[in-house]
Amino acid sequence: LEIDVKRILVLGSGRVGSIIASDLAKSPDFEVAVADASAASLDRARARAELETIEADLTPGKIRELAARRDLVVGALPGSMGFAALSAVVDLGLDVVDISFMPENPLDLDARARETGACALVDFGVAPGMSNIFVGVAQNLLDRVDSVSIYVGGLPREGVWPYFYKAPFSPSDVIEEYTRPARLVQEGRVVTRPALSEPELLEFPGVGTLEAFNTDGLRTLLDTVKAPNMVEKTLRYPGHAELMRVLGESGFFGTEPLDVGSVAVRPLDLTSRLLFPLWNYAEGEEDFTVMRVTVEGVRESSRVRMEVDLLDRYDPATCTLSMARTTGFPAGAAARLLAGGAFLGPGVHPPETLGRFPETVDRILEELGMRGVLFRRCEAQVP
Amino acid sequence: LEIDVKRILVLGSGRVGSIIASDLAKSPDFEVAVADASAASLDRARARAELETIEADLTPGKIRELAARRDLVVGALPGSMGFAALSAVVDLGLDVVDISFMPENPLDLDARARETGACALVDFGVAPGMSNIFVGVAQNLLDRVDSVSIYVGGLPREGVWPYFYKAPFSPSDVIEEYTRPARLVQEGRVVTRPALSEPELLEFPGVGTLEAFNTDGLRTLLDTVKAPNMVEKTLRYPGHAELMRVLGESGFFGTEPLDVGSVAVRPLDLTSRLLFPLWNYAEGEEDFTVMRVTVEGVRESSRVRMEVDLLDRYDPATCTLSMARTTGFPAGAAARLLAGGAFLGPGVHPPETLGRFPETVDRILEELGMRGVLFRRCEAQVP
Repeated sequence: LEIDVKRILVLGSGRVGSIIASDLAKSPDFEVAVADASAASLDRARARAELETIEADLTPGKIRELAARRDLVVGALPGSMGFAALSAVVDLGLDVVDISFMPENPLDLDARARETGACALVDFGVAPGMSNIFVGVAQNLLDRVDSVSIYVGGLPREGVWPYFYKAPFSPSDVIEEYTRPARLVQEGRVVTRPALSEPELLEFPGVGTLEAFNTDGLRTLLDTVKAPNMVEKTLRYPGHAELMRVLGESGFFGTEPLDVGSVAVRPLDLTSRLLFPLWNYAEGEEDFTVMRVTVEGVRESSRVRMEVDLLDRYDPATCTLSMARTTGFPAGAAARLLAGGAFLGPGVHPPETLGRFPETVDRILEELGMRGVLFRRCEAQVP
Repeated sequence: LEIDVKRILVLGSGRVGSIIASDLAKSPDFEVAVADASAASLDRARARAELETIEADLTPGKIRELAARRDLVVGALPGSMGFAALSAVVDLGLDVVDISFMPENPLDLDARARETGACALVDFGVAPGMSNIFVGVAQNLLDRVDSVSIYVGGLPREGVWPYFYKAPFSPSDVIEEYTRPARLVQEGRVVTRPALSEPELLEFPGVGTLEAFNTDGLRTLLDTVKAPNMVEKTLRYPGHAELMRVLGESGFFGTEPLDVGSVAVRPLDLTSRLLFPLWNYAEGEEDFTVMRVTVEGVRESSRVRMEVDLLDRYDPATCTLSMARTTGFPAGAAARLLAGGAFLGPGVHPPETLGRFPETVDRILEELGMRGVLFRRCEAQVP
C-alpha cells in the first residue's frame, strides 16, 4: 500500500514557522523540511518533531532551488522577506500558504499565479487570517454588510513596566505595524490614519482593560469586502501605545541613516537592538491572544450583529506561545487543505475567500479546535 | 585718569556663557574676551555686546595659552569639559568662576589652588549656586540645621507633548542629570538613589503642578553642610520623568558602543542627536525658572523654617532665556566680586561659603535684582 506523501517546505523556523513545521511533520501524510538562516531557530523546530532542517540564506534563488522538489510551500518569513519569497514560489507554480504579513499587497501576484497555476493562500494567520475568514463568512450570510471591526492582540500574561509587551518576532516587525499608515473605511471611502492613532479602552472578559489603536490590518479586506465602515485595531496593555508614539515622534523608528559621531546608523536598527532583549519571550513565559471580530449588516430586512471572540492562552503542556498557536495553526490547516486538493484554483486567495465555502471553514475550525484554539461565535438581532 | 580695567576671559559662548560675557562686557571696568569652538555660538555673544571673540578648540593647553594674559576667567563649558578647564586655570594661579557643573568634585582642586594662589568660585549658577548660598546663609543664622531641601527646574513656558521640556544646553548634559546616581542625606547618612526616582507632585504659584524627582544636585553641600537630612530634586512637567525612566531603562542613554549592523554606536549619541531638535529652544521661545529652597533648624531653642522662592521668566526685552539669566547672572556677580579683590583667599570655594559674608550675599542679590532676578525669602517659626 503506497500513501501519497506530500513534500512540504516551510520557509522560516521562527516562533511561528517552527510550530507550523512541527505540527505538519507529525502527520504521516507529509514529509516536512524547514529552512532558516539560523541554526538556533532550526533547533527550535527539530526539538518539536522529526523533520528535515535546511540552514540556508533564503534568497529568492535559494528558495526556488529548495522549493523545486516540493509539493507545497508554507511561508513564515519576516514581513520584509515575504513578498520576494512568495513571488519565487508562485513563479514555480507551486501551491503556497503565506503568513509573512508582507507590507506589499500579495494580490499583486494574482495574475502571475493564474499564469503559473500556483494556488496561494495568503495572510493566513489569526488576524489577518481567521479574522478575514469570519468577515467572509458574514459577508456570505448577510444581504448587506454595514460595518466590520477587528480588534486583535497578542500579549504577555504578565505586563511588565515599561512596555507591558513582548513579541514572538523581531521588534522591527512589530514597529512596522506602528509606523505603517492605517487604512480604514469610513462612509464608503478608504481613509488613512497614522498608526497608533485613535486609542480607545475596551474590556475583555478574562483579560481586563486593553487599549486599541489603529493599525493597517484590513489589508486584502479593503479590496474584497464592500462595507461602508471597516476598522482594524491592535490591542495592547494601556500605556504601550503612548510610548510607541513617543519613540516614533522622536525619530527612534527612523529608517534613514543618521550621522552619529563618525558613523551613520538607522535609528530603527539601534531601537530594535535595544528592545529585542526587553521584548523577547523568555523560555516558559506565558502569553495570550485576544481577538474580537464584529460584523453588522442586514439579512432578510433584519439588522444583525455577528461577533466572534477568541481568548487563547499559552500551552504549558507543549511550551507553545499562544501567538504561535493562533498564527501557526490556521496556516497549518490551510496547508492541509491545499495538500488535499486545489479546491480554489490558481490565483492568490485571501482568507475571506473561504467565506463562500462553509464546509471548508468548518474543517479549519475543527483543526483549530483539536488544538484547543476555540472561537466563541454569536449572532444577535440589533434594533 | 586711568581705570584699572580687568581682562576677563569667558570660556564657552553657549546660551549661558554668551549672557555672562555680554553682561560683563557692558561694564567699563572689564575688557571681555569669549572663547568657543563654534563661530555661531560666538556670534550669539557678539550680537549682545562689544567684546572680543576667539574661535578655538578649548583644550587645556589652549586654555592655558588664552588665560595667561587675563586677570580672571569664567568657565561656562559643558560639564564634560569643566574639570579639565578649571584645572588648567587653577594651574595658572588665576581667579576663576565656574558653572560647568562638572561630574567631578571641584573641591579636589582646592589644595592645588592654595598652592598656586588661585581663588576659584565653583558651581556658581542658580542651583547649584544661589541655592547653596541660601543654605550657607541659613547655616550661618541657625544654631543647628535639621533639614535642607532644594527643588529647582528650568522649563519652557508651554509644555509640548511628548517631552514637555526644552533645554538651553545639549540633551546629553541633561541626560547626565538623569543617569548620575543621586546622593542625598537621610538621618545623617549619605545614601544613593537612582536618578529620576521618588517622584512627587508639587504646586508652584504662577506655574501649576510640577513633578520633582531625585537628581545629584547637592554636590559640595554633602561636604560642607552637616544636616541630618538633605535632598535635591529637579522639577519638570508631570510625565517627563517617566519617559526618561523608560528611555534609560531601555538602554537609550547607554554610553558603551553597541554593534548595530556593521557599525558600533553609543546609544546616548543617537538619542542626543534625535532629541536635540525636539529640546532646542526656538528663537523667542519663552521659558521660566522655578526654585524653592527650604532649610529647617533651631535658633535660640526655637524651631525655624527658612524658605526662598524664585520664579523667573524669559526676558522678552533682551530675548534672554530665564535659564540663562538665572544661571549666568550669579556667575557674573561672582566675577565682579573676584575682580573687586580676593576677599576669600586662595582655594576652591563653593557658593555656600558666602553664607558667612552677609554683605557679600546682599551685593550678589542686589546685582541679580537689578537684572530682575528676584528671590522671595521668608522665615517662620514652626511648632
